[in-house]
Amino acid sequence: MTQERPAVVLLSGGLDSATVAAIAREQGFHVHALTFRYGQRHQGEIEASKKVAASLGLSDHRILDIDLRAFGGSALTDDIEVPKDRSADEMNDGIPVTYVPARNTIFLSFALGFAEVLGSNDIFIGVNALDYSGYPDCRPEFIAAFEKMANLATKAGVEGEAPLTLHTPLIDLTKAQIIARGKELNVDYSLTLSCYDPGAGNSPCGACDACTLRTKGFSEAELEDPALSI
Amino acid sequence: MTQERPAVVLLSGGLDSATVAAIAREQGFHVHALTFRYGQRHQGEIEASKKVAASLGLSDHRILDIDLRAFGGSALTDDIEVPKDRSADEMNDGIPVTYVPARNTIFLSFALGFAEVLGSNDIFIGVNALDYSGYPDCRPEFIAAFEKMANLATKAGVEGEAPLTLHTPLIDLTKAQIIARGKELNVDYSLTLSCYDPGAGNSPCGACDACTLRTKGFSEAELEDPALSI
Repeated sequence: MTQERPAVVLLSGGLDSATVAAIAREQGFHVHALTFRYGQRHQGEIEASKKVAASLGLSDHRILDIDLRAFGGSALTDDIEVPKDRSADEMNDGIPVTYVPARNTIFLSFALGFAEVLGSNDIFIGVNALDYSGYPDCRPEFIAAFEKMANLATKAGVEGEAPLTLHTPLIDLTKAQIIARGKELNVDYSLTLSCYDPGAGNSPCGACDACTLRTKGFSEAELEDPALSI
Repeated sequence: MTQERPAVVLLSGGLDSATVAAIAREQGFHVHALTFRYGQRHQGEIEASKKVAASLGLSDHRILDIDLRAFGGSALTDDIEVPKDRSADEMNDGIPVTYVPARNTIFLSFALGFAEVLGSNDIFIGVNALDYSGYPDCRPEFIAAFEKMANLATKAGVEGEAPLTLHTPLIDLTKAQIIARGKELNVDYSLTLSCYDPGAGNSPCGACDACTLRTKGFSEAELEDPALSI
């Protein structure tokens, strides 16, 4: 693979996207990271994304402001309570209120525009079809349909240039496998923030779905979560 | 058709989307209009969109800020000159520099999120495959692919609810036919602004591709452009 091909990586400040950025870098891509300040209640993830980008040595990290609170409709962007202490069965039962309508579609659309301007054919996103929260826009069939649409949306789709690939290196991994992969790549998980509803100083609540999945992942990977020991 | 079903209509302040909003309203939809302040050089279209929404009696018109200048790459969002006085042959030769990377994909993604929050299954966009400027994201194959993706992206796609329809009522019309249709629906075209590069007081330049297509449309419809007589 040619060194330094540009790739756009969606970076949230969480564990998954930090791992994805490290994977993209290891694959020889010049990573252009893209983070959104979208009105999420967990603004701490923006700070986390900056730390992750710096620790990975990424020279281009853009933070875009988009106001998804203009629509609301999610516990992350509206006055809806974040559910806590849910069992695995509860988490697997339907789409939770933390789902943000069309969020991944919107994020990927911006990534598509950024990639086109950069002359990049590669976008990375840390979606995961196992150990996830039942979001429709994390499913493989959604990703495949987005990629197909993206290849018709841009100049490349008209001019028959190299098609765009939507990379989802975590899609078939468990949270424990993601963490193990990240450890191999020296991802510093102490910098990441997964919690949907952090307290003062961005301390994770330990009880939302994101915290529950993260705790389970570190436990199954037989590792301690370094973010908890700071 | 049931009265007052909600629909999201992308409204730019131009001639096409004003016509689309009037068509959606005539079809019995409760129109929720969505406009973007995306860093375009023709900010006058935001003011035009407000006037159009008011003249159509729309009770919900949201203007979202998204900064596509963060990427640039277009004559509309970057320091690239807007081409003037191009012939029809020149306009049909490739993708012009006024193309904004992934703009319609981004706009439609926000419309998708808005529709989901509203419980709407209908999105309207004024794309047009004739008399257009060669933008990849105005083509029928792009629209079809977006609709397919959208139906996998949201709760409705998981829960088997009514699928989302992407309405493109202008897609097969000439500019003259669009204007004739709008006149039937009493669209006040004096309020619309099509120009990519308006001068003081938002006066159209008369020479960019958008002005050229508009002039040709009114001429072929055998009507005067009311925006020029103010």
